[in-house]
Amino acid sequence: MHSAVDVIRAKRDGRQLTDEQIDWVIDAYTRGEVAEEQMAALAMAVLLRGMSSAETARWTAAMTASGRVLEFGGLGRPTVDKHSTGGVGDKITLVLTPLVAACGAAVPQLSGRGLGHTGGTLDKLESIPGWCAELSAERLHAQLRDVGAVVCAATADIAPADRKLYALRDVTGTVESVPLIAGSIMSKKLAEGADALVLDVKCGSGAFMRTLEQARELARVLVDTGTDRGVRTTALISDMSVPLGRTAGNALEVAEAVQVLRGGGPPDVVELTLALAEEMLDAAGLSDVDPARVLADGAAYEVWCRMIRAQGGDPDAALPAARYVEQVLAAGDGVFHGVDARAVGEAAWRLGAGRARKEDPVAPGAGVVLLAGPGERVARGQPLLELHTDRGETLVPARETLADACSVEAAAPPERPIVLDRVRPADPRRRPR
Amino acid sequence: MHSAVDVIRAKRDGRQLTDEQIDWVIDAYTRGEVAEEQMAALAMAVLLRGMSSAETARWTAAMTASGRVLEFGGLGRPTVDKHSTGGVGDKITLVLTPLVAACGAAVPQLSGRGLGHTGGTLDKLESIPGWCAELSAERLHAQLRDVGAVVCAATADIAPADRKLYALRDVTGTVESVPLIAGSIMSKKLAEGADALVLDVKCGSGAFMRTLEQARELARVLVDTGTDRGVRTTALISDMSVPLGRTAGNALEVAEAVQVLRGGGPPDVVELTLALAEEMLDAAGLSDVDPARVLADGAAYEVWCRMIRAQGGDPDAALPAARYVEQVLAAGDGVFHGVDARAVGEAAWRLGAGRARKEDPVAPGAGVVLLAGPGERVARGQPLLELHTDRGETLVPARETLADACSVEAAAPPERPIVLDRVRPADPRRRPR
Repeated sequence: MHSAVDVIRAKRDGRQLTDEQIDWVIDAYTRGEVAEEQMAALAMAVLLRGMSSAETARWTAAMTASGRVLEFGGLGRPTVDKHSTGGVGDKITLVLTPLVAACGAAVPQLSGRGLGHTGGTLDKLESIPGWCAELSAERLHAQLRDVGAVVCAATADIAPADRKLYALRDVTGTVESVPLIAGSIMSKKLAEGADALVLDVKCGSGAFMRTLEQARELARVLVDTGTDRGVRTTALISDMSVPLGRTAGNALEVAEAVQVLRGGGPPDVVELTLALAEEMLDAAGLSDVDPARVLADGAAYEVWCRMIRAQGGDPDAALPAARYVEQVLAAGDGVFHGVDARAVGEAAWRLGAGRARKEDPVAPGAGVVLLAGPGERVARGQPLLELHTDRGETLVPARETLADACSVEAAAPPERPIVLDRVRPADPRRRPR
Repeated sequence: MHSAVDVIRAKRDGRQLTDEQIDWVIDAYTRGEVAEEQMAALAMAVLLRGMSSAETARWTAAMTASGRVLEFGGLGRPTVDKHSTGGVGDKITLVLTPLVAACGAAVPQLSGRGLGHTGGTLDKLESIPGWCAELSAERLHAQLRDVGAVVCAATADIAPADRKLYALRDVTGTVESVPLIAGSIMSKKLAEGADALVLDVKCGSGAFMRTLEQARELARVLVDTGTDRGVRTTALISDMSVPLGRTAGNALEVAEAVQVLRGGGPPDVVELTLALAEEMLDAAGLSDVDPARVLADGAAYEVWCRMIRAQGGDPDAALPAARYVEQVLAAGDGVFHGVDARAVGEAAWRLGAGRARKEDPVAPGAGVVLLAGPGERVARGQPLLELHTDRGETLVPARETLADACSVEAAAPPERPIVLDRVRPADPRRRPR
């Protein structure tokens, strides 16, 4: 016989929660027996007192068990999934999913919509005319078998405990807890039933984790939690001090992803995509396939087209464009060092690419385009950025957001690697092959 | 423009809340704009991060300001109030209120009902046939003018923020926070508008504060908060390792209080009553009056009778008695050291003297009577306790609760003073006269 107050008190006083307490509190919260205010107090106690890796793993498992767990048997190839902790201009999923499928794995990529300054993968794909995010479990399974690549919306029966807790944490100042972030991410990913998982933990001004130390801590907990639940899990920590690629915004990012799938695109997007693809293939037991070759020979682009068509989209259709486009000019001569990721994310959000509340629509054509890359010489008055929007009144606040964000210096910028670190399971016997 | 999340985050991260943040969050919570789950997260952050004395004083003032503040002008004598943090067998208010009134002060004693193992003053007085706890503000004022002594229920418009927060803390594991306890006690007491206040902070197994150190900390915060708000405030810390007097239960305690008012009763009740009366008279500027004399000469008993009659009660009526009375016998020969206060409180509660939920009724005749006092020689088989109840099925669990609680030893018990310490305002210029 458990009581919510006993569980709250135990964590409040710095004790480790038992497996039974964790299972009970998550189940009772999902059923509404533990009230929102009780879970809020518990979440704050977890944030301030922490949870051990054993507690985090159990918490995650209980949240996974609160709903449906997908199974992808009978596909004849390994399933592998990727999750990014969210950044500005992060269109990697769009390229990576068809690429890894073209390399021989099945990639079931259940995604979300964006809230705040980071875009959502579904919002981006929905800028493609006809494309539909909602798939039944049966259609998801069929598309995974036939195409090998799916990006679709997670259904409401996946980790319903997390759905409730995520909304609660947002209004109670309990977002910034590594165990709770890990539980939220991993409970959904474990419910999605892939054999292997690669995490892209973003680090820098445009990411949730601002420092490498914080990003390493989160990556370690995520990898340990996945490993504990029997999923081959690794993580890359990647730079998010400047946006990924040259675009932030829904249709703008789709266009850039297609450039990469057709053999072009910005080098940082290509580099990170290939690094994550290698991790995924390694985790899936397909390390003999070279993703760079598969990207170059057009096979990834072919899977992209089939994946979009399978969900009603037209990969050849023109993408929506914004009504207004304005430029931001360089304020001086020098070497462009890039533009702060968070400022770009906020500007794109103000221009209409993101939403303030989850029921808001997004403008498919809105966003920011970088016209120069880090390290390029620029002259005063030269266009550095483009602002795209359907609502002209957003241009002034977007300009203000970006006012001090563009860095033009006398000296060349330091080398900035895109992959900052790699985190693998602590126990070498459990490492991916 | 405040947001609940910003306030929660500030306290969560160990920052001091501003006056504006405190005023806003208490007001917005009272109005329902800050949700229960947000206040739960904030309460947990306060519990784990603490509040400074300046924050606690402001928090208290904001809770006081959430409702009506009483004023007792035009009485022609000083008003002084007493508050006990709650103990087992604590019938002091019943004696002290008419005694201090008989000494020349006006005593407006707004009280609560009991929940859990400590009894409520209103529950005790309601065992007197006809007595009514609910008074309008006008009747309260008139009785204070005419009799000088009132014990009645606090109305719903006194500190409504505390009413909400008290219920919330109970279900969210956020009761045990000194600043929140202090805010709850003092916001109500300050709304009751007395010129001076004496606190009886209980310490020991039957009290909320188990150790002298904890009791001193709470007493210090209470005294500082009252002093900060311009009320002459002092505190006594008194022993609650054994029950006060020989009875725990509603009518049983009223009968014992009447014994004291008529010049008899257990020495510990008399001693603590006189110590608190001296503090109250000192704070009220009436230190030349000797409460022992006023108790001995029958003047206090006379005010008692008038106070009870003014609220419809009959001070001469027979008090309700329980249907079943059973004895607990001494298990061996030796010197009785007393019986653990918490065990007596829980046994009385099980026998029907207390309530499990706030809507439950209490049994007026139920409770526990001690037949021997600490230091008395007892022989094996001699009756030590009486259990009084209307429901025979409660006798076995009550016995079990008391099984190991009676201490009979070979040696005499150590001297146990009833008043353990006295806490006065830190700033000597603000001390009571």
